[in-house]
Order: sequence, then structure tokens, then C-alpha cells
Amino acid sequence: MRITMTPIGVFYTDETDIPRHWSISDKKGWIEIDPAYTEGLKDIRIGEQIVVLFHFHRSAPFSQDLLVQKPPHKDRPMGVFSICSPRRPNPIGFSVLTVTAIRDNIIHVDRIDMIDGTPVFDIKPFVRP
Amino acid sequence: MRITMTPIGVFYTDETDIPRHWSISDKKGWIEIDPAYTEGLKDIRIGEQIVVLFHFHRSAPFSQDLLVQKPPHKDRPMGVFSICSPRRPNPIGFSVLTVTAIRDNIIHVDRIDMIDGTPVFDIKPFVRP
Repeated sequence: MRITMTPIGVFYTDETDIPRHWSISDKKGWIEIDPAYTEGLKDIRIGEQIVVLFHFHRSAPFSQDLLVQKPPHKDRPMGVFSICSPRRPNPIGFSVLTVTAIRDNIIHVDRIDMIDGTPVFDIKPFVRP
Repeated sequence: MRITMTPIGVFYTDETDIPRHWSISDKKGWIEIDPAYTEGLKDIRIGEQIVVLFHFHRSAPFSQDLLVQKPPHKDRPMGVFSICSPRRPNPIGFSVLTVTAIRDNIIHVDRIDMIDGTPVFDIKPFVRP
């Protein structure tokens, strides 16, 4: 079974040294959503945490030798489903970002860990477990 | 641009009354991962919280009239990117589940909000913001 996704927008940033994970990031950027979806953004508020699902668009296709990988900040190889590597069977990224401003179809966000030009699949409210 | 995903496994449950959201769920189920990916599960531990990305496979295609929807538990219509509705531009679901057991390619999970037969795209570690 194959399922096709189409990005709803693109993430941009002027930052150059992108942190490896949003939980340790103080970098900023913005998401430009396709204007066709602007009405769906009407309840997003400044200060809110949002879940952003995105495409690891620069990652090479997955191969079996990537089932176990050594993350740069860990001292041992780990299973791909226990790490946040962009080299995974389905190249979907997940970040919890903080909204700093919103105007029309542009959402400014803090704590980013995506590179400039990243396609965005979805935005969801973040509910704390 | 269109991006194609292939599920890595399927979620199953014997429960019948599935809660609308994992944050209020006490229901159980299990994820059966394609055995080709078993090695990638080796560092998942009992008691751990995992992010599960899955396909809202029963949802009808998205249409513009769904940009604003009234969730059953809210008193007003809200933008689709501020609610967890399965009817969204890209039908990707996101849940934070608790691992209760793991053996080979089967992960038993608690706090489920997915229906039986749901295709799973990815499992990631949950890092608390």
C-alpha cells in the first residue's frame, strides 16, 4: 500500500546553524501555508505550542543498513525508531514549535530544527501528555 | 509536489469504544511492524512514551468546507489546524502512546485512539517539551 501526501506549505529560516532537535533549539523561522488553507489557521494563537509534521526532503531513500544508527550525541548505535534521525522508512519529521506571530497564511515559530525550504504536511495543536 | 509513504506496520485493537484522543484514553492495542524493520525496534522499552504517526485510512478526501469544523467536545467551529480531526489535508494522525510490552516485531501500547487496522507510518521517541 502506498499513500500520497501533498505539502500544505513550506518552512523557511534565515538561520544557518540548525540544532539537531527542537527541544534544545532557540532558533527561529516561519511557515508559509498555501493561501487556500488560510481559513484553517484562524484559531492558532501567539504563544501556543504546535505540532508540525514535515518532509525530510533532503534525506536519501531508506535502506536496511539504517535500521540501527549512531546519533551524533549518543555513545552507541540505536534502533531507528528510538532516535530522531531524518533517515527513516517514511521521511516524516515531527517538531513541537512555539508560535511567535501569525499574519494571514504566515506563522512565525521559535525552537525550530528544520532546514530552510522544508515542505510541511500538517499543523496540529500540541496536547501535553 | 507529491510524496509517497508506505506503512511500516498496522495497529490492531480489540477495543470497541475508541476515545477521541490519546490524552484521555485508557484503551489498549498493539502495533505489528513489518518483520523487515524488527531490528529498528531494539531500543524501545516498556513504560516508554512513543510518538506514533499513522494514516487516517478511513477518512474521506479533504475538501475546502472542512477548513473549519466543529469538534464534538467544543462549542464552536474551529480551524482544522487547531483540532485533531481525522479530516485534514494530509490524513496523518499523531498519538503519544505508552509501551506496555514488546516482543520481536509486536509492540503493545496503552492510551490508544486509533481504530483497528490503522496503517502506521513511523514510531519516534517522545521528548517532553
